[in-house]
Amino acid sequence: EEIRTISDGDNNNQDAQNSERSVQIDKILNKTSYDVNLHRSESLDWFNVLIAQIIEQFREEAVNKNNILTSLNNFFTNNFMTLPDYLDTIKVTELDIGNSFPIFSNCRIEKEKQQLEAKIDIDLKDRLALGVETKLLLNYPKKGFASLPISLTVAVVKFHGSLTVSLTRADEFIHPPEDESTTHVKKEVQGKDGNGYFLIFSFSPEYVLEFETSSLIGARSKLENIPKIASLIEYQIKKWFVERCVEPRFQFVKLPSIWPRSKNVREEKNESAP
Amino acid sequence: EEIRTISDGDNNNQDAQNSERSVQIDKILNKTSYDVNLHRSESLDWFNVLIAQIIEQFREEAVNKNNILTSLNNFFTNNFMTLPDYLDTIKVTELDIGNSFPIFSNCRIEKEKQQLEAKIDIDLKDRLALGVETKLLLNYPKKGFASLPISLTVAVVKFHGSLTVSLTRADEFIHPPEDESTTHVKKEVQGKDGNGYFLIFSFSPEYVLEFETSSLIGARSKLENIPKIASLIEYQIKKWFVERCVEPRFQFVKLPSIWPRSKNVREEKNESAP
Repeated sequence: EEIRTISDGDNNNQDAQNSERSVQIDKILNKTSYDVNLHRSESLDWFNVLIAQIIEQFREEAVNKNNILTSLNNFFTNNFMTLPDYLDTIKVTELDIGNSFPIFSNCRIEKEKQQLEAKIDIDLKDRLALGVETKLLLNYPKKGFASLPISLTVAVVKFHGSLTVSLTRADEFIHPPEDESTTHVKKEVQGKDGNGYFLIFSFSPEYVLEFETSSLIGARSKLENIPKIASLIEYQIKKWFVERCVEPRFQFVKLPSIWPRSKNVREEKNESAP
Repeated sequence: EEIRTISDGDNNNQDAQNSERSVQIDKILNKTSYDVNLHRSESLDWFNVLIAQIIEQFREEAVNKNNILTSLNNFFTNNFMTLPDYLDTIKVTELDIGNSFPIFSNCRIEKEKQQLEAKIDIDLKDRLALGVETKLLLNYPKKGFASLPISLTVAVVKFHGSLTVSLTRADEFIHPPEDESTTHVKKEVQGKDGNGYFLIFSFSPEYVLEFETSSLIGARSKLENIPKIASLIEYQIKKWFVERCVEPRFQFVKLPSIWPRSKNVREEKNESAP
């Protein structure tokens, strides 16, 4: 009986919080003149240009410095000892960092679980590819008995997804203070200045991620297990993505303060000295 | 003669770089289907909602915890020793953190100095006010001879400005490698991972910042130097703003990597346990 009463009290408290939250959300939507039911989705063409510019800079650097290829080859060389003993050294033969840009569009605000979130469509048609060569070592009946050259290319050629984005302060995210994992977050978040701003994003599970994978085992012959190798790799890439940022998982990234500070001031230079 | 040739070489090199940069910018605009001359400016209503939500959270915290008022009073108490000896302790009597939200609108891409930038209008009509009370101590002809109570309120009531925003990687920002100040930036930037993304923003000099300042000196009488005190404070606030983020000055803020990482993963919880 008494337990029942306490539980009711908690529910009432929760209800009061939810109702307060609803009032707050209505106020925000009202003051920003945004009607979640009627407002048209907005374009993000300006954002596409800024993102494209930053990606282009990244690519230019990568090409000029050859740095991705170098670090990949270093990685494979340095981790040689941890490779299974049936694989020879891995050599990167192809690296395609693409030539196109992601297109963000159709941005709209939705009210989800007492939270206002932006939903954005993303489309990418490009070719992001990694090709490697190695040898499959047959150590039976004796070590180094035979080896089969393997050549493998994995390419992502299409992505389409719906991205959910919101901004929050730390407190908002941490509902249950008794939960251990969130306590950890709270510490991390509020430790320094208690003043954190966070970007939260995740992709809807109905995303599309298309691959073009090709593999050759043996010098001249295609073997039958090629589709299996390809799908194993594709599975690992999708797993990596799903475990990090597909609902119900989301990424929770601390934003820097944009409060104007002296140390962040720079000044434009006159470009054309006489 | 020889110096002339070298200088010509530099110019040619610069020209080649500029021309390459132009080709790149045209490619970006082409692939993102953005014509800087014809594209209409875009609305940012979704962004207003997200920003409003984060400001509302900030205000709620500030009110619940009374933390701004506390830290302001602490500040004035702790810095008591550094105050001029003609001022008594300062007591914060009013703090208004506003009730409205900034409205961002009219976003368009412009090509400036081989760089693509977004220009965004910002409007804020609100009341952000700080009121203090202190006493003016007259230490002549002898210490503590007389004191005049002062009451002062400074309120920002309107802001309108044009914000320029761009994203960049570190390398892009650092043109002259021989310049010492930029070398410093380069170190800071590339020190850790050589992988920095930056948000650059500044306000156009034609901004509007309106104040409502009121001050009372003496218990019952208004003295003639009141407008001077008010304009001195307004001048200091504008100076603070101009020195940090009005062209040609800009803020240069390192963005966090949004590359999906395990450590940033969180998972949604089922809110309604039975």
